[in-house]
Amino acid sequence: MPKLFYNADIYTMDKSNPVIENVLVEDGLIIGYNVEVSEKYQKVDLKGKTLIPGLCDSHLHTVMYGSELDKLDLSKANSIDQLIKMGQKYLKQKDFKPNEWMFGWGWNQENFKENKLPTAQDLDKISTEIPIVFKRECRHVLTANSAALKKAKLYQKEIKNERVYTDQNNKPNGILCEDAQNLILAAAPQTTITDIKKYILKASAKYLEYGLTFVQSDDLADSNISFTKTLKAYFELADSGKLPLRYNLQLRLTNEKELKEFIAKYNISDYNDYLSLGPLKIWADGSLGARTAALRKAYSDQADNEGQLLCSRKKMKKLVEIAYKNKMPVACHAIGDRTIEQFVEIIEELNQKFDYNLRHRIIHSQLADYKLLKRIKAAGINTDIQPAFTASDWKIVKERIGKQREYQSYLWKDMVDLNINAAGSSDSPIERPDPIWGISCLVTRKDSDLKPDFGWLPNQKVTVQTALEIYTKNGAYNARAENKLGKIKTGYKADFSILSKNPFYVKPDELREIKVDATVIDGNLIGNL
Amino acid sequence: MPKLFYNADIYTMDKSNPVIENVLVEDGLIIGYNVEVSEKYQKVDLKGKTLIPGLCDSHLHTVMYGSELDKLDLSKANSIDQLIKMGQKYLKQKDFKPNEWMFGWGWNQENFKENKLPTAQDLDKISTEIPIVFKRECRHVLTANSAALKKAKLYQKEIKNERVYTDQNNKPNGILCEDAQNLILAAAPQTTITDIKKYILKASAKYLEYGLTFVQSDDLADSNISFTKTLKAYFELADSGKLPLRYNLQLRLTNEKELKEFIAKYNISDYNDYLSLGPLKIWADGSLGARTAALRKAYSDQADNEGQLLCSRKKMKKLVEIAYKNKMPVACHAIGDRTIEQFVEIIEELNQKFDYNLRHRIIHSQLADYKLLKRIKAAGINTDIQPAFTASDWKIVKERIGKQREYQSYLWKDMVDLNINAAGSSDSPIERPDPIWGISCLVTRKDSDLKPDFGWLPNQKVTVQTALEIYTKNGAYNARAENKLGKIKTGYKADFSILSKNPFYVKPDELREIKVDATVIDGNLIGNL
Repeated sequence: MPKLFYNADIYTMDKSNPVIENVLVEDGLIIGYNVEVSEKYQKVDLKGKTLIPGLCDSHLHTVMYGSELDKLDLSKANSIDQLIKMGQKYLKQKDFKPNEWMFGWGWNQENFKENKLPTAQDLDKISTEIPIVFKRECRHVLTANSAALKKAKLYQKEIKNERVYTDQNNKPNGILCEDAQNLILAAAPQTTITDIKKYILKASAKYLEYGLTFVQSDDLADSNISFTKTLKAYFELADSGKLPLRYNLQLRLTNEKELKEFIAKYNISDYNDYLSLGPLKIWADGSLGARTAALRKAYSDQADNEGQLLCSRKKMKKLVEIAYKNKMPVACHAIGDRTIEQFVEIIEELNQKFDYNLRHRIIHSQLADYKLLKRIKAAGINTDIQPAFTASDWKIVKERIGKQREYQSYLWKDMVDLNINAAGSSDSPIERPDPIWGISCLVTRKDSDLKPDFGWLPNQKVTVQTALEIYTKNGAYNARAENKLGKIKTGYKADFSILSKNPFYVKPDELREIKVDATVIDGNLIGNL
Repeated sequence: MPKLFYNADIYTMDKSNPVIENVLVEDGLIIGYNVEVSEKYQKVDLKGKTLIPGLCDSHLHTVMYGSELDKLDLSKANSIDQLIKMGQKYLKQKDFKPNEWMFGWGWNQENFKENKLPTAQDLDKISTEIPIVFKRECRHVLTANSAALKKAKLYQKEIKNERVYTDQNNKPNGILCEDAQNLILAAAPQTTITDIKKYILKASAKYLEYGLTFVQSDDLADSNISFTKTLKAYFELADSGKLPLRYNLQLRLTNEKELKEFIAKYNISDYNDYLSLGPLKIWADGSLGARTAALRKAYSDQADNEGQLLCSRKKMKKLVEIAYKNKMPVACHAIGDRTIEQFVEIIEELNQKFDYNLRHRIIHSQLADYKLLKRIKAAGINTDIQPAFTASDWKIVKERIGKQREYQSYLWKDMVDLNINAAGSSDSPIERPDPIWGISCLVTRKDSDLKPDFGWLPNQKVTVQTALEIYTKNGAYNARAENKLGKIKTGYKADFSILSKNPFYVKPDELREIKVDATVIDGNLIGNL
């Protein structure tokens, strides 16, 4: 029996037909709208709420996010003492099995009244038997306790790695940075496919709460979670019909061999209705905060530093060329303008060689000035942007790159004006996977304290309509799913997000207070109205 | 000595360089920006105000507006008694010469406590000797006194024209509608070139007060102001260096003969720095309010009325084709979708025939739905929009065209998203020539009472940045002046508008309170800072 969703403000994101009265669904598909109410339909009363196409996050890290949901959240700790107490409480609550490790994340010494990094000595107050690893908020630093250091055999060696911090006796004090973190993590129990599936499902449950019906997941190969294992976990969940929302995977294949093997093995296309394989992901630089994004001119607050390219031009070109040959789009992580330009130049070159244009993407695109954006457009490249980064970063941008370059950064509106398809993303767990927050950031360009007063670079604000498009149809387009997702249109999947309030009828500063009361996927309502 | 404009928030509308610190001007041109302050420059301290490129109105009626400024303003009359008193007062103040007529405009019987039209009998209380003509606000109706009726010899004939209202004796009662108004106006003293020049200068002074540095004027041929006379008035003003701001003329040539003669006589190009000749203007339908705009489907509140085309397809095509052959762009007044579609089809057809694309425009484009907008874009046509019309019309649109067509009307944001070059216009004297009000209407879509609460069709709101572009660079583009006007860029004319407040740093509802404190044309400051 067809279902009629009615009694709502309905915005379709289909410009030929922007606002409708009701929408009729059958077998998971939209079969009509503005129909006469009839007894032939099962009626779903939306109680005056607002219905939009299902929200999409175009770039996040599901396994990482889900694994953190499974771990101890330390982000609220305001002292080392409290950090220890949180660990002690967690130890009592959770029944730790032999060989099991305790993981936590999210501490930041700048929130601690002691204002110093916690050490193994501190964490030993929780346990000296159970290995403990607590990651810092930035995930670039961790503290391990002595049991973990022992398991990793770090007490037995002479420490020559400056990223392993030591005490006065040249013994590790528990603090490890950047890639040195793997010295500890490699000693931890292997993450199983069962674990990964659990993480995906935990993350999925959160995504639905935030109103997402479609995510594009880039699953980082943590030192002990290989991409192969991750892929297997997704396939198993998809096969058993357990993925509760739609996934498109950004393929973390880090070298030629992996890429070629993957292509030989898999068709680059839809796995099933809930899982599809997306673009090759290339990771090409760092972040602005850490001054590791690669710039064309040095950082304004560090004259000898231009950041670092994490993927050479040669390697990048090789990978992109293989992808091209196999008609596989590429999604490149690029924050700094040097990185972005390198990727754009490679695409410009290969566009000459191949007579078809793939739907390549630049993830982040934070420091692309208008001229570079014009080249991005001309090369047919799209972007995945993180609107929440404006809220997180606005205070440091001028410091890092100076006033003139500041005006040429985070140019979300210029992208839209150039018709670059910018899709909204949280980069979760970097930001919470909350599209409503993303929409708020796009429209206001304010942070969680509603600062600065009129938004940061207010000439780059976008309208509510554009922000909704960025989180619906633009996400679908970047995933090559624009003919079935992202709009409310006959023949499209019946995927909707149902909002507590109409975003066109609240003040911009109140956008962030809108709740997603329910989602609809394949016509099935999840949540309570 | 170069002049340095400094101490201001400066927005350039040049996306490669959106915000600058100061701007350097010499011989009327911008020669640099972000320069080091030096003794070599004459310094103009802008006292922390906001400087933007000179504001442009892309379609208004200067002679009509100026002539009304020269006449009695009756728009505040709230009774026929008051109307009479205003006339009596004006009679005393102004020294009427023999043969001079009294003209007034702006009354509306809906504001009168009597709620009826004034008649000759009423106006005779002002004078029975001096001919008096008072036009209604809509300009479709006028009332004349008995002296004017006598001059027009209307008492001597038997009245058969239903647009000449009569009393019980079948004598004219002074009220005349539509084209019948010319029966009176033709008897009035001829408007001289001196009069027209006065009107242009009166209007110009107002334009500068409103912050305009460039207007595109469509000078209606009133029955006794021919276009030839009007043109002569502009030429004389331009020749004597008296035009205080830049004019581009939209050429009101109403038939093949006039058009061909004009082309034979004039070069379609710049007359001098202050005067240029613009597109052929074609007037093709009426208005939504009067249900005279031509629609594809009948009015929702008048089932047998589809409005009226004022220019047949055959005539329009002929005129456009002559224009094409002479590489002259066409600006077509079209409000209803039938009119718009007719013009678009003609351009589509002629784009096939001619291998160059001219910069044609649709003035108004109120009832163009998204599909029609896509055709407008594809045909390379741009638009001149009247943002203030949303404020004036929003209450009647649903009534006139129904709910579904309402969502497909006044689509300013969709035009912008489609990269149609939409330029802002007041259609003055229909709306006051106030670009700040236009910007406010674009951003808020509210009327002067700040209604409706969140704006009318809020999905069509645009950002402050876009609104500023619509009133600066987009206006320049439509007039083919984008290489010298509309941006703050080296080599461009030093034309600026200086705002009392920064529009990015006020609440949307307060945009309309921004004042234009001064304008700069050719580097010369007009007004007080």
